[in-house]
Amino acid sequence: MAGELAPRNPDFERVVRESFARQSFMTTLGAVLERIAPGAVDIGVPFSDALCQQNGFLHAGVLASVADSACGYAALTLAAAGQDVLAVEFKINLLRPARGARFTARAEVIRAGRTLTVCRADVLGDGGELVATMLSTVISR
Amino acid sequence: MAGELAPRNPDFERVVRESFARQSFMTTLGAVLERIAPGAVDIGVPFSDALCQQNGFLHAGVLASVADSACGYAALTLAAAGQDVLAVEFKINLLRPARGARFTARAEVIRAGRTLTVCRADVLGDGGELVATMLSTVISR
Amino acid sequence: MAGELAPRNPDFERVVRESFARQSFMTTLGAVLERIAPGAVDIGVPFSDALCQQNGFLHAGVLASVADSACGYAALTLAAAGQDVLAVEFKINLLRPARGARFTARAEVIRAGRTLTVCRADVLGDGGELVATMLSTVISR
Amino acid sequence: MAGELAPRNPDFERVVRESFARQSFMTTLGAVLERIAPGAVDIGVPFSDALCQQNGFLHAGVLASVADSACGYAALTLAAAGQDVLAVEFKINLLRPARGARFTARAEVIRAGRTLTVCRADVLGDGGELVATMLSTVISR
Repeated sequence: MAGELAPRNPDFERVVRESFARQSFMTTLGAVLERIAPGAVDIGVPFSDALCQQNGFLHAGVLASVADSACGYAALTLAAAGQDVLAVEFKINLLRPARGARFTARAEVIRAGRTLTVCRADVLGDGGELVATMLSTVISR
Repeated sequence: MAGELAPRNPDFERVVRESFARQSFMTTLGAVLERIAPGAVDIGVPFSDALCQQNGFLHAGVLASVADSACGYAALTLAAAGQDVLAVEFKINLLRPARGARFTARAEVIRAGRTLTVCRADVLGDGGELVATMLSTVISR
Repeated sequence: MAGELAPRNPDFERVVRESFARQSFMTTLGAVLERIAPGAVDIGVPFSDALCQQNGFLHAGVLASVADSACGYAALTLAAAGQDVLAVEFKINLLRPARGARFTARAEVIRAGRTLTVCRADVLGDGGELVATMLSTVISR
Repeated sequence: MAGELAPRNPDFERVVRESFARQSFMTTLGAVLERIAPGAVDIGVPFSDALCQQNGFLHAGVLASVADSACGYAALTLAAAGQDVLAVEFKINLLRPARGARFTARAEVIRAGRTLTVCRADVLGDGGELVATMLSTVISR
């Protein structure tokens, strides 16, 4: 996939950082960009009492939100200059209760097309355990 | 589906309200329970500058979060007394940019089993337009 | 959704029938087109001993196959002349064992875009019971 | 995941082979078991003129069918003696046209629970290219 994952915009890291900074919801979640590489983006989110479901674990929607942004930005690292990305759809499986101090959504592009990019994201807990996994379709334009 | 959607716990509405009140993330989103009926729950969320993606629309993760909670609570209306519900997985298609003042996730049970319940949720905008749709699997225990 | 579901190609029914006739896999399954309308296509498949899983029920893959084709053709009814459609992705929930003599996948377009069309399909058994449900993304080009 | 992927039934390979042999649909597709290991099953399917979509590529439903069976059997390798498995739901992304002489669905368990097992399957073409990818939830009982 080497050629496929070559960034078309050498400035991809700046583009991702600027777009992420405009996502107010990521700020609300306390989420931060942890890694930006061609075809791969990690977003971390700390546990917070303000982001829980009924049993005091992180809400599935929080995990889905950071995984969705990570997938979108993984796709954006490979987009042409001036393109934006939007989620078409995603599916997430919740594998373990999200207990712990911090979670990281690690997204990677598994197929980059002209129009559509397909990404996978794993959400890992403190100890590296797999808490959730996402498969996502992103459109570039 | 009449018999299938008969609540086993006559106190289902109180159970849903109490569980929802414990979901701190729903409070953070400003989400509110708009309707509770056997096999059906609506959750509304107002637009907020704190919940946006890079273009100023509501983040897909916000829509997914309220739709996920709505699906879980639709399943909970049909659960036995003392049971709790957890999302196993969900898939969401984002159909239109989430612009507008308010969004409602309308979830309904389409198959209630002993262990697993399958729900569908549509997220509607101000004018009733379909903004997103979710298909979700929920486990009761 | 009236305007959205207006066919752009008045000859849509012939286009669907000809494409379906070229899907050798539908012939192998014994599947038939049961209904073609703007934004909606039904495909029926009879039970066959050659299409089963380990317990003698229709294999989930058979249900997925006819539902996938029904979604694609529902999208094709709304495509421009000369366009073809391809499945981008789909998700299916299997709700009941597929026992019975005949199954029908009823697909409808829930969002028709220039590039992407999102469809939903329900697979119904003999007695109208819901056996499976699909949410699918289709690309036109 | 070492402990998690330890088979509970030492006879798991025979159990998988016998169940696969009862899936008449796999015989109809010409599909064969290529690998059985704890938490991992590969199923191969050769191209056939009888299994195509409208452009002469393998139908997405064929890929979904072998990937679904591979996921189910990957889960079955970890089940207790006497248990059976059923697909709850799956999602598949079609990444490239399925042209080529042979395809292999490689499934692995990513989370084995008491009741639910989550599997991932990649469908690879002749040259090892990724043609499709599935995320699946399986129930054991």
